[in-house]
Amino acid sequence: MTKISSKRIATLRRELASRGLDAQLVTHPPDWYYLTGFTGEAGALVVGKKGCALITDGRFTTQAKDETRGVRIVQHKAGLYASVGEFLKQTGTRRVGFDAGQLTVAQWEGLRKGAGARTVLKPANGVVLGLRTRKDPQELAQMRRAAILASEVVEHAIRLLKPGVRELEVAAEIEYQMRRLGASGPAFETIVAFGERAALPHARPTAKRLRKNELVVLDLGAILGHYCSDITRTIYVGTAPKPVKEWYKAVLEAQTAAIAAVRSGATCGEVDAAARTTLAGYKLDQYFVHSTGHGLGLEVHEDPRVARGQKTRLKPGTVITIEPGVYMPGVGGIRIEDDVAVHENRSEILTRAPRDFMEL
Amino acid sequence: MTKISSKRIATLRRELASRGLDAQLVTHPPDWYYLTGFTGEAGALVVGKKGCALITDGRFTTQAKDETRGVRIVQHKAGLYASVGEFLKQTGTRRVGFDAGQLTVAQWEGLRKGAGARTVLKPANGVVLGLRTRKDPQELAQMRRAAILASEVVEHAIRLLKPGVRELEVAAEIEYQMRRLGASGPAFETIVAFGERAALPHARPTAKRLRKNELVVLDLGAILGHYCSDITRTIYVGTAPKPVKEWYKAVLEAQTAAIAAVRSGATCGEVDAAARTTLAGYKLDQYFVHSTGHGLGLEVHEDPRVARGQKTRLKPGTVITIEPGVYMPGVGGIRIEDDVAVHENRSEILTRAPRDFMEL
Repeated sequence: MTKISSKRIATLRRELASRGLDAQLVTHPPDWYYLTGFTGEAGALVVGKKGCALITDGRFTTQAKDETRGVRIVQHKAGLYASVGEFLKQTGTRRVGFDAGQLTVAQWEGLRKGAGARTVLKPANGVVLGLRTRKDPQELAQMRRAAILASEVVEHAIRLLKPGVRELEVAAEIEYQMRRLGASGPAFETIVAFGERAALPHARPTAKRLRKNELVVLDLGAILGHYCSDITRTIYVGTAPKPVKEWYKAVLEAQTAAIAAVRSGATCGEVDAAARTTLAGYKLDQYFVHSTGHGLGLEVHEDPRVARGQKTRLKPGTVITIEPGVYMPGVGGIRIEDDVAVHENRSEILTRAPRDFMEL
Repeated sequence: MTKISSKRIATLRRELASRGLDAQLVTHPPDWYYLTGFTGEAGALVVGKKGCALITDGRFTTQAKDETRGVRIVQHKAGLYASVGEFLKQTGTRRVGFDAGQLTVAQWEGLRKGAGARTVLKPANGVVLGLRTRKDPQELAQMRRAAILASEVVEHAIRLLKPGVRELEVAAEIEYQMRRLGASGPAFETIVAFGERAALPHARPTAKRLRKNELVVLDLGAILGHYCSDITRTIYVGTAPKPVKEWYKAVLEAQTAAIAAVRSGATCGEVDAAARTTLAGYKLDQYFVHSTGHGLGLEVHEDPRVARGQKTRLKPGTVITIEPGVYMPGVGGIRIEDDVAVHENRSEILTRAPRDFMEL
């Protein structure tokens, strides 16, 4: 086991001890990657008081042996969860935590049958996700690199915005550039939305061509060394009408206010409120139809949620997105998004692209 | 509701009636796309005896109204599953089926609390997935196009295989070409594996450079108009040693035998056995560490599983992959994969790239 993995496993074991558990069942791929370095897509990791075992199938056993240290690799032949259950029974593991948000009802039933009546399955939700919200210095360094890469790609993409170009072409070029710069791929389906399609917060790129006098929303993220970035910029192609300029100003102000609210100890709800209150000052809060941001790391959406009323307090090492927006159905939308790391006494914006209103 | 959606919803309603259910809760995005055309990523669809309702959040309501016909769009503010439960309670929907393989334990708990004691939640697994295994002519036409696109891309990628090129560069070029040909993106993370990395059935592309005298496995798929394709070719760069040629011959023979076994009424286990028995004739079955194939459609892995002992019978309209392989840890691997549609009295290979052994 590498030095980093042992430290993370040790932290998890202290958590298990405090909950009176003999083992935690880890069924979410980013969680087991975090704990062991295994990058396979199918399996289940059992972290016991002493040993760790990874139950997986023939496609992944060689890879698991190559990627992990100090983890017993068990190849199952029948159903995964039935086999995990049997493994728990055979090893006499009695009190086992599982993440109810990461296990389907069917998987839970298979597990329960395999484990038999003497094994107690206890919901222990978000345990590894919780550890993952406090990034260590190596993780933060990797996230800085991923954020800078995405910033370079967004600036490159803006230069492609000429009337006649299609949303799909810009999306293809964005993902190609990411990979050329070393990313293993996009962190999510790249959003390129022209004109009134910019009013859809999650628009998929289409064959639509860019026309003069349209808004453009570019929302993209890269995975670099397993860590995600996420950035959004909104540009106007032409000379923007006055309302568009005002909406942009309001969104930028809301984003700046939310970023200013980011500090260790602040609640996620307070950060969300900073953005929402600013937009309310412009009577635009009703057009801000989603939350202000989300945690970022091995996954593009992870804890914490930066949303209305969320009481979770920000801790040093957490990275979140700050991405307020306004959406006018049938007209267009504006969103500005950056990635922000929480430190003890300050915050750090990881993304680097200019945020000023741009008319091309 | 479009003509196709109404037909699919009507088929689902007959299924519900036969199970004594008042409604089916559809929580898996490809399932709700299949039934309504909604492409959003978050929400839940309730298909009742008469009406359909889609519960989703503010990011997706405009999009849902644009994409669907005859579906009531309900915007929730609190937790999704609590809101779905309340909706079921308020509309007096008593016996509700859900897919235990598509709902986490935590979601099920939220749903149960929201729905109250008078609503009965009954596992009704794979109901929509089952409908999706019988593709209609429009779906098959789309899958042919997706398969031909992937075949063109694999042939293009083979031309890039010169010593010195990196796995990641080839993967980037593959995904770029897909998009240029109209795909909305890759159906899964493209596999480009050189040399001994080809022994990992699910290798992720790395910065490794191609050397002379190495095996290359290319496994890629495209999403075109929402439908997936999946193709694998294995090439030798240099003049292959005799054992490699023999392994290739055995895998090709195994694949040919499995394709020949595909017909309406055959069990998936019989198709798998055809590949496995052929490899056993070469004493290579121990190196075939995964199943022979899987269903393909709106998802890259869907029902049925073409694996050992599977009793599911193939039906007209089902599309499966046939992809036997042999993997020699530390040495290399060979896999050949095509997409095959089942018809009443025949099968149809949808992918088009040559399968003969290629030495570059």
